[in-house]
Amino acid sequence: MGLRFRPVEGAFYTMLTDSARHLVGGAGLLAEMVTAGADREDVAARMREAEHAADERTHELIRKVNSTFVTPFDREDIYRLAAALDDVMDGIDDAVDRMLLYGVVDLPTGLTDQVDVIGRCAEVTAAAMPSLRGLRDLDEYWIEINRLENTGDRNHRRLLAHLFSGEYAPLEVLKLKDVVESLEDTIDAFERVANIVEQIVVKES
Amino acid sequence: MGLRFRPVEGAFYTMLTDSARHLVGGAGLLAEMVTAGADREDVAARMREAEHAADERTHELIRKVNSTFVTPFDREDIYRLAAALDDVMDGIDDAVDRMLLYGVVDLPTGLTDQVDVIGRCAEVTAAAMPSLRGLRDLDEYWIEINRLENTGDRNHRRLLAHLFSGEYAPLEVLKLKDVVESLEDTIDAFERVANIVEQIVVKES
Amino acid sequence: MGLRFRPVEGAFYTMLTDSARHLVGGAGLLAEMVTAGADREDVAARMREAEHAADERTHELIRKVNSTFVTPFDREDIYRLAAALDDVMDGIDDAVDRMLLYGVVDLPTGLTDQVDVIGRCAEVTAAAMPSLRGLRDLDEYWIEINRLENTGDRNHRRLLAHLFSGEYAPLEVLKLKDVVESLEDTIDAFERVANIVEQIVVKES
Repeated sequence: MGLRFRPVEGAFYTMLTDSARHLVGGAGLLAEMVTAGADREDVAARMREAEHAADERTHELIRKVNSTFVTPFDREDIYRLAAALDDVMDGIDDAVDRMLLYGVVDLPTGLTDQVDVIGRCAEVTAAAMPSLRGLRDLDEYWIEINRLENTGDRNHRRLLAHLFSGEYAPLEVLKLKDVVESLEDTIDAFERVANIVEQIVVKES
Repeated sequence: MGLRFRPVEGAFYTMLTDSARHLVGGAGLLAEMVTAGADREDVAARMREAEHAADERTHELIRKVNSTFVTPFDREDIYRLAAALDDVMDGIDDAVDRMLLYGVVDLPTGLTDQVDVIGRCAEVTAAAMPSLRGLRDLDEYWIEINRLENTGDRNHRRLLAHLFSGEYAPLEVLKLKDVVESLEDTIDAFERVANIVEQIVVKES
Repeated sequence: MGLRFRPVEGAFYTMLTDSARHLVGGAGLLAEMVTAGADREDVAARMREAEHAADERTHELIRKVNSTFVTPFDREDIYRLAAALDDVMDGIDDAVDRMLLYGVVDLPTGLTDQVDVIGRCAEVTAAAMPSLRGLRDLDEYWIEINRLENTGDRNHRRLLAHLFSGEYAPLEVLKLKDVVESLEDTIDAFERVANIVEQIVVKES
C-alpha cells in the first residue's frame, strides 16, 4: 500500500517521456521538410533548435542520474535509454540537414513513405514511455516498432533499387542515397530504443 | 556428482546451437545465389523462408528467457547472444535480397571470396555453440573468427579498389558496392557474436 | 592511509593509458599520410606495424583481465574499453589503407580538417586515461570529445556537400566519400570510448 515510487523516481519517467515527445516534434519537422513548397532554410533552422533543446534535456537527465542515489531501474540502463532517444533525434536532424545541404529537390515518393514510418515510430515510442513505470503493456510497442522497422527496411531496399534504376544521374543518386540512408539509420535508432526497453523489462521484472 | 545443469538450462544451449545452425543454412543459400546459372528468384524465396524460421526461433528463445527463473548465464547475455545471431541471419538475407533487387549479374570474383568467408564463419560459429555449456574450448573459435574477419576485411578493401578501378560504370559500382557492404556487415555480425561469447566466458568463468 | 590500489590494479591503468597513447602515434601517421609529398607506401607500412603493436597490447590487456581475480572496475568494462580503444586504431588504419589502395591524390581541404580533429581526439583521450584511476577530472574530457565530435560531424556533412557539388567525377566522389567516411567512423569511435568512460564513472562512483 502507499506509493510504489518515490517522487524522485517519478521524475525519471517524466523526463524519459518528455525526451520521447521531442521526437514527435522532430519527426513533424522532417515531414514539413519533404512537403512541396516548404521553406527548407526555415524548417532546418527550427530543426536545429529542436535538436539543441533535446540535447539539453538529455544532459539534464544524465546529471539527474549521476546525482540521484536511488533510481527506478539500473542507472546504466537509464543512461543507455536516454542516449538511444538522443540518437534518434540526431538521426532526424542529420536527415534534415543533408536535404538542405545537398540541395536535393526532386524527392522520390518512396522517400516520403520513410518519413511517414519515422512519424509513426515517434508516436508509438512517445506513447510507450509512460508504461515504463509499471514495466508492462509494452508488448504492443515492440511488436509495432518491429513491424515498422520491417516496413522501413523493405521501403529502403525498394528505394535503393529505384535510385539505381538509371533514372537519376550518378551524382544525384549519391545525394539521394545519402539522405535515404540517414532515414534508415533513424528507423534503426528507434528499434534500438525498443530493444533497450525490452532488455530493461527482461531484467527488472 | 549428478547433473551439472538442470534440463531447463540445457534447453538454452540447444536453442542457441540451433540458431547458429540456421546460419549455416543461410550461408548455403547465399553461396547458391552467387553460383552461375542459379534461379535467383527461387533462391531468394527460400532465403526469405529461412529468415522467417530463424526469426521464429529467436522469439521462442526470448520468450523462454522471459519465462524461466534460472538461466545458465545472465539472461541479458542470452538475450544479446540470440539477437546477435539473428543479426547475422538478417545480414545474409539482406545481401541475397539486394542481389535480386538490383539485378546485379556480373559478380567480381572477390565477391565470391567473401561468400566463402561467410560460409566458413557460419560453420565455425555453429561448431562453437555447444561449447558454451562448459564455457571452454572456445579459444580456437575466437582465433578463427578473428582470422576470418581480418581476411574478410582485406578482401573487402581490395574489392572496393577493384570496383573503383574504372572497369565498371558508376551506377554498377553503386549497386555492387551496396551488395559488397552487406557481405562485410554480415562478417562483422559474426565477429560481434564471437565478442559476446568471449564476454560471457570472461564474466562467468 | 596506505595504498588505495594494489599493484596489479595499477597495471590496468598503465595498460589502458598505453593503448590510448598508441592512438596518438596512429593519428600522427594519418597526418603524415595527407601531407603533400609523403611517401605513402612507407607511411602505410608503418601504420600497419603500429596497428599490429596496438593489437598485441589489447590482447595482452584482455589476457590480464581474464587471469586477474580483482580488477579495479568491472572486468566487462575494462574489456569494453580496451575493445573501443582498439576500434579507434582500426579506424585510423582503415583510413590510411584506403587512401593508399584507391590512389586518391587530390585531397579536398575539408579532409585535412578531419585529420586534425582526429589528432586532437587522440591527444585528449590519451591525456584523460590516467584520470580513470581516481574516476575524476573527466568532465572536461567528455566535453572536449563531444565538441570535437560535433565539429567533425559538421565538417563531414560540408565535405560531402562539396564532393557532391559536381566538381569531381562520380568515381572520384565514390573513392573520396569512402575515405571521408572512414575518418568520420574514427571520430565516432573516439566518442564511444568517451561514452564507455562516462558509463564506468556513473557506475563506480
